[in-house]
Amino acid sequence: MNPFIYEIPTKVYFGENQLQHLGTELKQFGNRVLLVYGGGSIKRNGVYDTVISQAKEVGMEVFELSGVEPNPRVDTVRKGVRLCKDNNIDVVLAVGGGSTIDAVKFIAAGACTEADPWDFFTKGAAIDSALPIVTILTLAATGSEMDSCGVISNEETNDKLARYSDYLFPKVSFLDPTITYSVNEYQTACGAADMLSHVMEVYFTMEKDLYMLDAVMEGLMKTIVKYGPVAVKEPQNYEARANLMWAGSWAINGFIAGSKNTAWSCHPMEHVLSAYYDITHGLGLAILTPKWMEYCLDESTVDKFYQFGTNVFGINPSLPPMEVAKKSIEQVKTFLYKDLDLKSTLTEVGIGTEHFDIMAEKACKGKVLPAFKPLGKQDIKSIFEMCL
Amino acid sequence: MNPFIYEIPTKVYFGENQLQHLGTELKQFGNRVLLVYGGGSIKRNGVYDTVISQAKEVGMEVFELSGVEPNPRVDTVRKGVRLCKDNNIDVVLAVGGGSTIDAVKFIAAGACTEADPWDFFTKGAAIDSALPIVTILTLAATGSEMDSCGVISNEETNDKLARYSDYLFPKVSFLDPTITYSVNEYQTACGAADMLSHVMEVYFTMEKDLYMLDAVMEGLMKTIVKYGPVAVKEPQNYEARANLMWAGSWAINGFIAGSKNTAWSCHPMEHVLSAYYDITHGLGLAILTPKWMEYCLDESTVDKFYQFGTNVFGINPSLPPMEVAKKSIEQVKTFLYKDLDLKSTLTEVGIGTEHFDIMAEKACKGKVLPAFKPLGKQDIKSIFEMCL
Repeated sequence: MNPFIYEIPTKVYFGENQLQHLGTELKQFGNRVLLVYGGGSIKRNGVYDTVISQAKEVGMEVFELSGVEPNPRVDTVRKGVRLCKDNNIDVVLAVGGGSTIDAVKFIAAGACTEADPWDFFTKGAAIDSALPIVTILTLAATGSEMDSCGVISNEETNDKLARYSDYLFPKVSFLDPTITYSVNEYQTACGAADMLSHVMEVYFTMEKDLYMLDAVMEGLMKTIVKYGPVAVKEPQNYEARANLMWAGSWAINGFIAGSKNTAWSCHPMEHVLSAYYDITHGLGLAILTPKWMEYCLDESTVDKFYQFGTNVFGINPSLPPMEVAKKSIEQVKTFLYKDLDLKSTLTEVGIGTEHFDIMAEKACKGKVLPAFKPLGKQDIKSIFEMCL
Repeated sequence: MNPFIYEIPTKVYFGENQLQHLGTELKQFGNRVLLVYGGGSIKRNGVYDTVISQAKEVGMEVFELSGVEPNPRVDTVRKGVRLCKDNNIDVVLAVGGGSTIDAVKFIAAGACTEADPWDFFTKGAAIDSALPIVTILTLAATGSEMDSCGVISNEETNDKLARYSDYLFPKVSFLDPTITYSVNEYQTACGAADMLSHVMEVYFTMEKDLYMLDAVMEGLMKTIVKYGPVAVKEPQNYEARANLMWAGSWAINGFIAGSKNTAWSCHPMEHVLSAYYDITHGLGLAILTPKWMEYCLDESTVDKFYQFGTNVFGINPSLPPMEVAKKSIEQVKTFLYKDLDLKSTLTEVGIGTEHFDIMAEKACKGKVLPAFKPLGKQDIKSIFEMCL
């Protein structure tokens, strides 16, 4: 076990009617706010009106950037940066899911430097400061509302790249489960698949860390498996929406990772899929995850699968470990493809073998991902082929 | 479920050799540090020398207050406040367990007001600010290193009272499990009993909150039950010390409570025991907890015991709920009295019935604790009697 630093400074307002505190929280950062959102759903569900009235109440001027894409593009980030610089913005408010929040992170950072935002991802441009970030989460999935990471796509180069910085933690996030009542079945399912993957990426490593963190992760995974399907079937079930929402934040805010620094597996593979085909991130993960599990399972990894199967899915611990492991993969498939009703193959979503070579190369950056099972280009290509 | 605000700003350095960052962290707050500790153990285990050399390295002047009592007294807090005011202290550093850290919290707050520190507890004196607090934890137990609460005793009035304030969160805490290697068997056991109680106080309520938080609590309790006895038997077992240390912080930092605002049960009862007899807090809790469980168990509460027994102790879920509940109490007794080797009755620690009346009155402040099972004076007296 290596030493680690725990620091998650985001303040979270959780529950119904918490937006009544939005004005006060924004005002502490200044007088000019850039409101960033995606499509028009926030105008239909009343959140837009609430934001405007909260800002007006404390005498703040509101600037707007709408139309952030589901896989947010660097051009959109550039537009936001320009708006911040031209209008002396004091604080950036994201209203949306992970895409909008990710875009806002690099808008906030880009506003404080002369570097082009894409340089954050390809040239290691410094992030030495950022405008204060506030978020209102409308879709439980990526956990961006409480972490220091964001992912941006570049259409020209077919790249979808991630960047971390402590300056990217939102200062304040509003998590009102009722705002997610209008999220449709498909997006709800993709969100649940995404957050399950976040936990599994950390849980399934050969690097030992604290038992306590494994136990917490098992609790989070049980929560996602229990409430994902409920939220899909009963979109206005507060208990389900609330449990998913808070579990989603804790799945990736850094707490569960402890000192582990092992590379992730399914996320890098999915990012290239999304970069080439613009598919929903959670769907890509749902297709990849069980095949990746099958690819990884052998005598050297079976113990972790056994722990997963018995503690998360309650599989009989007296069965032989390999049998428990295989059953656990079946349980994950049942969860993703039956309970969440997601598609299970690349073929079904129109993806063929045409870019497998270059995608596999990009997913491991031409090296070997030092993950649960180390994955080089050929391994990743094999997993893609298993997903056809 | 009610709305809640999550905000835990403490930065934690976890693991071995993290004290190398102490100087840098202290220096950001100024040039004059008050070092507060209890007995001389920090001089024997080398922590004192490290602190002094770290402070000198960044050119800070060190003032000292030693001799903080196991149940820290308001007179000690007053001494610390005087030192801060007389020496223009910039930051207060606690090196110790919960007692030292609790004392430091009110020293830091007291230094910023003209009010007498005892007024924080009895007159609701305002805590509007506090000097920055840094801690080096030497005993895993109270969780004070990452929470906003402290408990102080007043010998003159036989009171031991708690006070919360967001200003009391430590800015930075250092958690190095190897520093706790020298904690003896008894203190290690009392620490484990204390942190188990912290989780149980939140877990055992009739007020529903998030399933996700219950699942996290079960993970924490399993961790404490697994590693408490290991740390007692093998004091230099890093894995055990590390798991206990991090579980102890998360048992009480506020995360697991979500929106629950139900009153605690065993802690108020224990605080009066410690106030009258100066016994170790964790030992008092160890004596009280199983009897309190027996007192609470009935048809209206059995479901929570069933959840506890099956998920924390792995008791066969197909048994009748009442049988699972009773077995779970036996498991808690085995943990406390056999595995941790703590005493199980008040009689054994020299406490008789002489103050039961006034103690029961004080524990519920003459009202009824609106807890898992509501507890009035007579209920508390009955539980005390069961502990003889």
